[in-house]
Amino acid sequence: MRYKITFSYDGSNFHGYQVQPGLRTIQNELEKAVSYLNRQEKTSVQSSGRTDGGVHAIEQVAHFDLNIEIPEYKIKLGLNSLLPQDIHIINVSKVPNDFHARFSTKKKEYIYKINIGEYNPMMRNYIYQYGKELDIEKMKKAIHFFEGTHDFTSFVSSEDKREDKIRTIYKTNIKKQKEIITIVFQADGFMKYQVRNMVGLLIEIGSGKRKIQDVEKIILKKNRNSSIKIAPAEGLYLRKVWY
Amino acid sequence: MRYKITFSYDGSNFHGYQVQPGLRTIQNELEKAVSYLNRQEKTSVQSSGRTDGGVHAIEQVAHFDLNIEIPEYKIKLGLNSLLPQDIHIINVSKVPNDFHARFSTKKKEYIYKINIGEYNPMMRNYIYQYGKELDIEKMKKAIHFFEGTHDFTSFVSSEDKREDKIRTIYKTNIKKQKEIITIVFQADGFMKYQVRNMVGLLIEIGSGKRKIQDVEKIILKKNRNSSIKIAPAEGLYLRKVWY
Repeated sequence: MRYKITFSYDGSNFHGYQVQPGLRTIQNELEKAVSYLNRQEKTSVQSSGRTDGGVHAIEQVAHFDLNIEIPEYKIKLGLNSLLPQDIHIINVSKVPNDFHARFSTKKKEYIYKINIGEYNPMMRNYIYQYGKELDIEKMKKAIHFFEGTHDFTSFVSSEDKREDKIRTIYKTNIKKQKEIITIVFQADGFMKYQVRNMVGLLIEIGSGKRKIQDVEKIILKKNRNSSIKIAPAEGLYLRKVWY
Repeated sequence: MRYKITFSYDGSNFHGYQVQPGLRTIQNELEKAVSYLNRQEKTSVQSSGRTDGGVHAIEQVAHFDLNIEIPEYKIKLGLNSLLPQDIHIINVSKVPNDFHARFSTKKKEYIYKINIGEYNPMMRNYIYQYGKELDIEKMKKAIHFFEGTHDFTSFVSSEDKREDKIRTIYKTNIKKQKEIITIVFQADGFMKYQVRNMVGLLIEIGSGKRKIQDVEKIILKKNRNSSIKIAPAEGLYLRKVWY
């Protein structure tokens, strides 16, 4: 019996998504809870992809297999009673056995939040407290150069060992509400640190340290020596995964 | 030299505002930082009033006296570098010696936030996660009965020993944005647990457990045995203090 779960989490107190011995991770907490429901049998939980320490999820997706059939609403209630307060199951649904949370993804959206106003202590783990003016018009022009199919090697962590660094960004957007800037990226997939490096470059453009044309130039370089200052984890949210 | 500070704090990890030996409080942290600036001389910091553990402030106000004159922007920088990440000084200004953060207040505003939608792990310390429907039209009718000058004994903690429990509520408001309800109270002053008990009663009215007329009835009773379920601290914010 395969189940798909949609869930949110506050990444502040986790060492990222993936199981790491001795460290508190989201996958660890999920697998403990799901295994308990699955008659104490060790059960793996496959997500749509990892997120790093401090990164949040508004609607992350994962799947797992149970040996027994349990009504979906009971799985939701059961998992939410077993999970810590910083992870929450939003939805549970039975899916065909060929559904795979990682390999069946069609599209993903990440958003990044920047506070250009006064430091806000309530939001210190939930937004990048940049605290200075940014030229949003320049950033809006620059972000369009990320759209389309590119080799994103220049924006990917050297820890990401996947051969293929070509991805397609379908849609981008930058909004400003009062003193909060929200940057949106939709793509067929993202690699480690990719969004935070793209945002880092946009911030350097908005602050006047770099030019709009640098987006294209850095993409074409295809190497990670462009010395972009990576944007911090706390501003980043996995917003949605499409199948 | 008397200085007025406007500051914000995340109340989640504090045992309230007031100094308590051995416990982390906002006043403790402020007095440590201010005393350091004041040539290591123990200096008291007087706020507009206390807030309880878990309660936040968007613009709290306090005053203190320094033996030396320091430019206002330097006090702001100095205090923010000394204070922990969950307190932030927004503004510093020199004030006449008869200014008193507590006794000179003219008006205060508190807001209370309720999430009637799905539990949000990112907001677990910053909103009351009620998670069920509330009849906002009933609540809007009910809140008007709090306006004006009343004896608020029925809504005040028995720990509040002040004789005079008469206060004037100048203005109230209830807004709903998506699944977040924000309740606003402006008054000449508030007593311990008063806002959280008023909100508790409004929630009981919105959920159908009590009637709109109960606001007036409970005010007139003038005793704390009305068994209102107090609303939790994490939804409450001191928003502004007027002088």
